[in-house]
Amino acid sequence: MYVIGERINGMFQNVKDAIRQQDAQVIRDLAARQVAAGAKALDVNVGPAVSDATGAMLWLAKTIREVTDVPVSIDTAKWSVMSAVVPQVPGEKILNSSKADADILSKYVQLAVENGAGLIALTIDADGVPGNADKRVELGAQAITFAMEGGMDMDKLFVDPIILPVNVAPKNPADCMAAVAQLRMFADPPPHLVIGLSNLSQRCTNRQLINRTYLTMAMSHGLDAAILDPLDRELMDVVTTTELLLGKMIYCDSFLEAARPAQGQGVS
Amino acid sequence: MYVIGERINGMFQNVKDAIRQQDAQVIRDLAARQVAAGAKALDVNVGPAVSDATGAMLWLAKTIREVTDVPVSIDTAKWSVMSAVVPQVPGEKILNSSKADADILSKYVQLAVENGAGLIALTIDADGVPGNADKRVELGAQAITFAMEGGMDMDKLFVDPIILPVNVAPKNPADCMAAVAQLRMFADPPPHLVIGLSNLSQRCTNRQLINRTYLTMAMSHGLDAAILDPLDRELMDVVTTTELLLGKMIYCDSFLEAARPAQGQGVS
Repeated sequence: MYVIGERINGMFQNVKDAIRQQDAQVIRDLAARQVAAGAKALDVNVGPAVSDATGAMLWLAKTIREVTDVPVSIDTAKWSVMSAVVPQVPGEKILNSSKADADILSKYVQLAVENGAGLIALTIDADGVPGNADKRVELGAQAITFAMEGGMDMDKLFVDPIILPVNVAPKNPADCMAAVAQLRMFADPPPHLVIGLSNLSQRCTNRQLINRTYLTMAMSHGLDAAILDPLDRELMDVVTTTELLLGKMIYCDSFLEAARPAQGQGVS
Repeated sequence: MYVIGERINGMFQNVKDAIRQQDAQVIRDLAARQVAAGAKALDVNVGPAVSDATGAMLWLAKTIREVTDVPVSIDTAKWSVMSAVVPQVPGEKILNSSKADADILSKYVQLAVENGAGLIALTIDADGVPGNADKRVELGAQAITFAMEGGMDMDKLFVDPIILPVNVAPKNPADCMAAVAQLRMFADPPPHLVIGLSNLSQRCTNRQLINRTYLTMAMSHGLDAAILDPLDRELMDVVTTTELLLGKMIYCDSFLEAARPAQGQGVS
């Protein structure tokens, strides 16, 4: 499972404050703790209402680089920010995210390839988020096609079927799962399939239970990446147990402990 | 989800003692508590080393009937016990279980149909438990064919792909899940697909985590019944959450509480 840590996001008050006060220690700490907990990449989102989004994103990315070399997922909906930031972020990076309209895919794929970066492509176009699985598959297939034609390895492409909150879109979780299963068939090797897990349970009760239950079922249908909170130990243990039951690791009595990276490991 | 409560089993010491001492209150209590917790049927197994298995099974079934009308799942591998007990158990019942050899299926289907009973058919034959999904599908399809030809409604047939402990058969959970998904396609309406969940985690650490994680993934591939411990609240909450995420119920803030039957409800 390719876990992208979600915690460096201006929606969290401590990150918002850290950005405002240029408090690097808060960011270094969040980066190191997420990597130690199993994150293989770190999402970075400056949050709303930041006057200099480009500057804030660059500061966050460079601060993260003080403690870890894992890819930084540059999370912005603005092309102006993305195109300014990507060439300047040191080390590995992922563009998060593009929509699936042809003109948008073209420029995002080009920017990613020019910078050796990954790309998260959402299955959304000018018509909005699809209301069924088929349209998600169609838009995901379009992203795969553009990535291939643009010279991007499938290992660099992450297709995101867009999970909506279950309290407002009850059929959406099943649709996304079906789209994941189908999109894995469109290329060999397949692209990564990713979701932003926490969005599923926005404004719901029992959020963590909903998140980890869905992650298990989506993984069993081919999801192999997720933006999530790696500091949620129960969630990470469920990831490990799901991989065990999918035959991706061999059982031993300490299978959970063996999968938990030692605190501090993997960071300088 | 059709939950078959597993707790009235002579493998549990309190049940073993109750059988030996004819202590009906222990059995009534286990029956009532499982139904109150959401069981829609109750498995009954006298356990090993009982001298009069037929008598013990009948006593258990009749004791259960003092508190609930839900189907009794008569769990024995012995034809002599099954054929003697089934006509005498009052109310609804399920034969648990037959193997998938032609001669065995013939007589079990006939016994079930004659008594208006359900049948759990294991995907095992004289060659033993299959080592892959395909053979499970083949044997499950044979059970479906025999049930149809014998005049059994698909709603009465439960195909069980046989889940083995993950610590001895690492590929087995994925094989069973694949077999479940395929077997649902063999009839319309499909038969029930069932597993004996606890067997998955025999002699494993983190048994409950393993059980509930697998149940979620198997349900998302079409499993609609399981023999399990309904007194495991976390497990039952995961069943509810899985059904929510499969679009089988609408979210409300109290979705867990709404699915938990009131204690004592459903029993006399």
